[in-house]
Amino acid sequence: TMTKKILVIPGDGIGPEVTTWGKAVLEAIGQKFGHEFTFDEALMGHAGIEATGNPLPDETLEKAKASDAILFGAIGHIKYDNDPSAKVRPEQGLLKIRKELGLYANLRPIMLFDELLDASSLKPEILKGTDILFFRELTGDVYFGEKKRSEDRNTASDLMVYSRYEVERIAIKAYEAAMVRGKRLCSVDKANVLESSRLWREVVQEIAKQYPEVETEHMFIDNAAMQLVKNPKKFDVVLTANLFGDILTDEASQIAGSMGMLASASIGDGTGFFEPIHGSAHDIAGQDKANPLASILSVALMLEISFGLKEEAKLITSAIDKTLKEGYRTGDIADANTDKSKILGTKAMGQKVLEYL
Amino acid sequence: TMTKKILVIPGDGIGPEVTTWGKAVLEAIGQKFGHEFTFDEALMGHAGIEATGNPLPDETLEKAKASDAILFGAIGHIKYDNDPSAKVRPEQGLLKIRKELGLYANLRPIMLFDELLDASSLKPEILKGTDILFFRELTGDVYFGEKKRSEDRNTASDLMVYSRYEVERIAIKAYEAAMVRGKRLCSVDKANVLESSRLWREVVQEIAKQYPEVETEHMFIDNAAMQLVKNPKKFDVVLTANLFGDILTDEASQIAGSMGMLASASIGDGTGFFEPIHGSAHDIAGQDKANPLASILSVALMLEISFGLKEEAKLITSAIDKTLKEGYRTGDIADANTDKSKILGTKAMGQKVLEYL
Ligand SMILES: CC(C)[C@H](C(=O)O)[C@@H](O)C(=O)O
Ligand SMILES: CC(C)[C@H](C(=O)O)[C@@H](O)C(=O)O
Repeated sequence: TMTKKILVIPGDGIGPEVTTWGKAVLEAIGQKFGHEFTFDEALMGHAGIEATGNPLPDETLEKAKASDAILFGAIGHIKYDNDPSAKVRPEQGLLKIRKELGLYANLRPIMLFDELLDASSLKPEILKGTDILFFRELTGDVYFGEKKRSEDRNTASDLMVYSRYEVERIAIKAYEAAMVRGKRLCSVDKANVLESSRLWREVVQEIAKQYPEVETEHMFIDNAAMQLVKNPKKFDVVLTANLFGDILTDEASQIAGSMGMLASASIGDGTGFFEPIHGSAHDIAGQDKANPLASILSVALMLEISFGLKEEAKLITSAIDKTLKEGYRTGDIADANTDKSKILGTKAMGQKVLEYL
Repeated sequence: TMTKKILVIPGDGIGPEVTTWGKAVLEAIGQKFGHEFTFDEALMGHAGIEATGNPLPDETLEKAKASDAILFGAIGHIKYDNDPSAKVRPEQGLLKIRKELGLYANLRPIMLFDELLDASSLKPEILKGTDILFFRELTGDVYFGEKKRSEDRNTASDLMVYSRYEVERIAIKAYEAAMVRGKRLCSVDKANVLESSRLWREVVQEIAKQYPEVETEHMFIDNAAMQLVKNPKKFDVVLTANLFGDILTDEASQIAGSMGMLASASIGDGTGFFEPIHGSAHDIAGQDKANPLASILSVALMLEISFGLKEEAKLITSAIDKTLKEGYRTGDIADANTDKSKILGTKAMGQKVLEYL
C-alpha cells in the first residue's frame, strides 16, 4: 500500500465541479486498495487572480512542488478572452506551473469507448480501432519564446524557438512509449517552412536511429490535421511541438467523440500533473451539466503513470465502461438514441462511477 | 469579350498534369465566349531549381508581374522533406512569389458537391449544408518572420509577427465577403497565449465595428480545429493568420471529402494567383491518377475573381457537377458504391469536363 500527497487545483469554470469527482474516485480507490491518499487544495487561474491577484499564487507553487501528484480542473475566463490587452491572464498560471515543474511532456491518449462510437461526427467505420497516444511538447515553442509589442503597439511578435535538448528528451519519451505500443511513430512539424521545425526533424531523425524497430514517419502539420480526419486509425504515437500539439489534440478529441472523455498527463522533471483536455466551459459552469469522466480518467492516468498502480487504474476505466454500457450519459455524449431518463448531471454521473467501482 | 494574358506555372509532382486541364478548360471557355486568352508558361519550385538553381527564377517573376492572372499547379519534393538541412528548397519559390506579388489574402472556399457527400469521413448529416469561405493571411506570420539558427546549430527559431496594417487589410476583405454571404465571421487566433494573436484580435474587434451587420465570433485555434469536425455548418467566413489558416484549411478540405476538389485564390496588390489546395503528391505523379478538378475549379475562381466573369465560372462548376452526377470519379473521390468502369484517370476526367462544357 502507498502513501501519497495529492494536490487538487480545481481552477476555473467547470474545474471545481469535475475535480470533486476525480477526488472522490481517488478516495474510493484508496479505501478499496488500502492506499493512504491525503489531499490539499490550491488556487490557480481566474480563481487565483480573484483571491490574490496572481494566476499562480506562490503558495500554490510551493504546495505543487511538495506534492506527489496534481489533479487539475480547467483554466480560463471569457472576461479575458474579450480583452486582448489584459496584462494578467488566467492562462499564465497554467503556463507558469508547467514551466516551473518542468512538465515538458504532455501525454494525451485518444481512446474510444465502444459505446460512444456514435457520438463522433466521424463515421463509425472510420473511427473504430483508433488508439493514438500524443506526445505534445509542453514547455517550449512559441508559448514560451519572447513576446514583444512595439512602442506604438502596432506590431506584435512571439518567438517560436526550440533547442536540441528540448526535442531530444520528449522524442525519447515518445519512442519509449512506441516500443511498448504499436511501434509506429509519426513526428509532426512544418519543416518545409520553419527553421525550428527543421531542427525538430533533424533531432527526431537522430533519435529514430536508436529505435530501429520503430517505424518513423515525418508529416507536415497541415497534412496531419487532414490525415487525422481522413484515417485516424493510421496513427499510433504522434510526437509534436507545443502549438501543433495543442491544435491536433483538440481536433483528435472531437474525432474521439467528446472532449468530455479525454484526460491528459503532463510529466517531466518532477511531480506529475493530470487534467482533462476540456476547458473551463463557463457557459455551463455551476449548472451540474459538466461531464466528470475526463477528470476521473485523469485520476486513472495519475495512478498508472505517477504511482505505477495499473490494477487500480484499470478498475476506474472498467467502471466508466460499465456506466456507459448501462446507457448512462452526460449531455455532451448523449445522442438521439440515448434513453432520456439516463441522461445524468455531473453529480449523478460521478455517483454512478463510484457505485460501479 | 476580354483579352487576358495568363501565366501557367505547372510546378512539381502532379502540378503539370493537372494544370494541363485547367488550361484546356480556359481555352474552351475562351472559344465559347469569344475571350482571347493567351498563355505563357514558367518554372517554379523543384522544377525551377533543376533548371536554374533557383526555386523562383527571375524570368518567372517577371512574367508573373506582367500577366493578368496566374494558374499554378503544386510545389514540393520528397527529396527536400527528408533533408532538413537543405539550403535551397522548392517551397521558397512559392513563398517568395506570394510576397513579391503582394498576395496577402488566400481565399479557400470549402464547398460540397452533393454527389460527394459520402466521400468524406464525416457523417453526411454533419456535413450537409457546409459552405465555408476561409480568408487565410498569406504574406505574414511565422512564415516570413526572421529565421535563425545558432552557430552550434542547436537552437532554431522563427519569428511569429504581425503588424496592424497586415491584419486590417485582410480583415476588411473578409468582412466585405461576409456581407455578401451569411453575415457571420469567425476570427481564429490564440490570443490567450500569443501576443501576435492579441494584436490580431484587437484589430479585428476594431474592424468589426465598421460592419455591425456581421456577427463576429473570436475562437481559439485549438477550439476551431475541434469545432470544424464537430459542426462544420456553423461556419460562414473564417478569418485567420497564415499558419493557422494552413492547418485549418487542410483539415477542412478533408471534411469536404477530398483535397482533390478544392481550389484557392490568392489576391492582394496585383496579379491574382490560382491553385488547387492539394500538394505535389509525388507518389502518384506522372501516372495519370491525379484529380484535375481542383485545377479546373481554380480556373473558375480566376474567371470570377480576377476577371469578373461569373457566367463563365458558373458554367465550369455546372460541368463538374454534371460529370459527378453521371457517376464519373477519379480514384481519390471514388468509394465502394462507384461503378468501377466510371473511375477515370486524369486525362479522361479532364476530357469529360470539356465535353460537358
Ligand atoms: C489554456 C491554454 C493555455 C492551454 C494551451 O494552449 O496549452 C490549453 O488549450 C491546453 O491545451 O492545455
Ligand atoms: C507548400 C507550403 C509552403 C504551403 C504553405 O504552407 O503555405 C502549402 O501547404 C499551402 O497551404 O499552400
